[in-house]
Amino acid sequence: MTETAPRPTLEAVAARAGVSRATVSRVVNGGDGVRESLVERVRQAVDELGYVPNQAARSLVTKRHDAIAVVIAEPETRVFADPFFAMQLRGISKELTAHDSQLVLLLTEGRADHARVGRYLAGGHVDGALVFSLHLDDPLPGLIQRAGVPTVFGGRPCWSEGTRASGPTVYVDCDNRGGAREAVRHLVGLGRTRIAHITGALDQTSAVDRLDGFRDVMVDVDPRLIVESDFTPGGGERAMRELLDNCPDVDAVFAANDLTAYGAMKVLREEGLRVPEDVAVIGFDDMLPVAEQTEPPLTTVRQDIEEMGRLMARLLLRGLDRRSVRDGIGGAPSSVILPTTLIHRASA
Amino acid sequence: MTETAPRPTLEAVAARAGVSRATVSRVVNGGDGVRESLVERVRQAVDELGYVPNQAARSLVTKRHDAIAVVIAEPETRVFADPFFAMQLRGISKELTAHDSQLVLLLTEGRADHARVGRYLAGGHVDGALVFSLHLDDPLPGLIQRAGVPTVFGGRPCWSEGTRASGPTVYVDCDNRGGAREAVRHLVGLGRTRIAHITGALDQTSAVDRLDGFRDVMVDVDPRLIVESDFTPGGGERAMRELLDNCPDVDAVFAANDLTAYGAMKVLREEGLRVPEDVAVIGFDDMLPVAEQTEPPLTTVRQDIEEMGRLMARLLLRGLDRRSVRDGIGGAPSSVILPTTLIHRASA
Repeated sequence: MTETAPRPTLEAVAARAGVSRATVSRVVNGGDGVRESLVERVRQAVDELGYVPNQAARSLVTKRHDAIAVVIAEPETRVFADPFFAMQLRGISKELTAHDSQLVLLLTEGRADHARVGRYLAGGHVDGALVFSLHLDDPLPGLIQRAGVPTVFGGRPCWSEGTRASGPTVYVDCDNRGGAREAVRHLVGLGRTRIAHITGALDQTSAVDRLDGFRDVMVDVDPRLIVESDFTPGGGERAMRELLDNCPDVDAVFAANDLTAYGAMKVLREEGLRVPEDVAVIGFDDMLPVAEQTEPPLTTVRQDIEEMGRLMARLLLRGLDRRSVRDGIGGAPSSVILPTTLIHRASA
Repeated sequence: MTETAPRPTLEAVAARAGVSRATVSRVVNGGDGVRESLVERVRQAVDELGYVPNQAARSLVTKRHDAIAVVIAEPETRVFADPFFAMQLRGISKELTAHDSQLVLLLTEGRADHARVGRYLAGGHVDGALVFSLHLDDPLPGLIQRAGVPTVFGGRPCWSEGTRASGPTVYVDCDNRGGAREAVRHLVGLGRTRIAHITGALDQTSAVDRLDGFRDVMVDVDPRLIVESDFTPGGGERAMRELLDNCPDVDAVFAANDLTAYGAMKVLREEGLRVPEDVAVIGFDDMLPVAEQTEPPLTTVRQDIEEMGRLMARLLLRGLDRRSVRDGIGGAPSSVILPTTLIHRASA
């Protein structure tokens, strides 16, 4: 490890500036009630010595860390394999940086590590948290509630008994159900009659809502046309094989996301079936470059993932400002549901 | 935001357990000098109330956070675009999780945000830091030194005047120069005579060392056969075009990493040149699946990236244990240079 020189102390700064410890402390914590000429002298001494205030102590006074935790309730392998998360983080990173707030991404190997994440959140290291990709029965919401950290969720949380937060929950989501309906109606409009749905992970509300949208249009559907999957390309492949085994007359597939659609199209190609002539395919997300690089390019339901990340960060920061100002004007921030758009390419 | 119920206080735990505040505090911070029966009563009260100690206050006592920061000195877009970082994080995450230490990834939009990262590191939120992908003149080493945070570096740091740490620096790296020499010797052994090198970002020691290895073998090389690039696929494409313009007789390319080799091979294919018949290509990293999925599959210098991440984490944790135990046995941890291996596939 780098063995470092001793850190300059508050005392050293006070001696250099010719002021008391208390004055240095007040300047470091905002400068309230200190004469401007003294503030200037202290700042100069801080710069010259390279003094960095001990934030563990400082934050006990100011209660702000200028840092926001991001928790993705997936193993880190998935976080880096699914471009959805990178896009959402991009939006969050831009917004936090614009407010000079540090993005603190808490990575885990899986659900067993969530208690540790809860301890870190409770530990007074961040001003708030952005939490996404929650699954049913995830202990995180309960841990976050105990930690007392202001939180905005990405995607409507699926509370189960005992984990529900006591107050109003703020989240950012897209219109999963409406987007799914539009996709399936488009397939119906193309004259398709054996329309299948490959679901996402059904312990997540986004997957449940998209399935509900599919059912809204396809009332009394053959149950074999609904195959449960998990939002991954490999899951899409397995689901498509199952579909072809059970329903060889399938003529359209609405996949719960683009990665699943990509996996399904791979199997269709291997089986010598043409897209869209034999089987039309629609995805969800408009994940670039995936959706543009499938063969043929993928018709899909677009949600603005980066914008969702940006909005989550903005709602959280706005809520934190309200708390510190305590003016209460406009009340607490509300959840936001963003619209979706069907993007027409060649696959359906 | 989730408006949460008030957090249970230390006082509430003390009342529930029928002990003093001081006793609760001692138990929460390790239990030294408290009777086992009292420890048990306090623990039970903590569990029943869901009490979480305020770590900002607690860490002033214990000086440990069970959290390690990871700083990658690249914009977050690059962190998520280059699988090198995901692989290194995989090793780090496994090792930290095995020690129940939280991985805290500090993301930035670029170098302008490094001062903020320095403030977070100085703020008493982590026990140590793992820092990689440093560039020449990066302010991070100086900021880390001021922060006084024990640090292990990934890749030999390139200190410039004024940013050098005062004590010994611990880093994990691979034998960049030796690996490069082996690659170029292999090309010579194939009878190639116009061997080019597409460099990495020359403000990083890994790129400089690989260039040195190339020069070790190719003494008095035609300077037009060395083209500066940046470790990205797009950079590899641009460099290959420049090479073909200036040296149309080039018959081999040693690329500074696999992504660069991938870009170069794309241009060779577009220009109707065959790999390896017309131009042999060797990369560096053995980044899977990239190296296996190029056409033809890529001959490359393997470094064990995940293992490097694991080693960085292990050296840091070992150093922290030494500091807290203060036994001094074995001295401070030393840097580690891992060997490389030339992996023979079809491209050279």
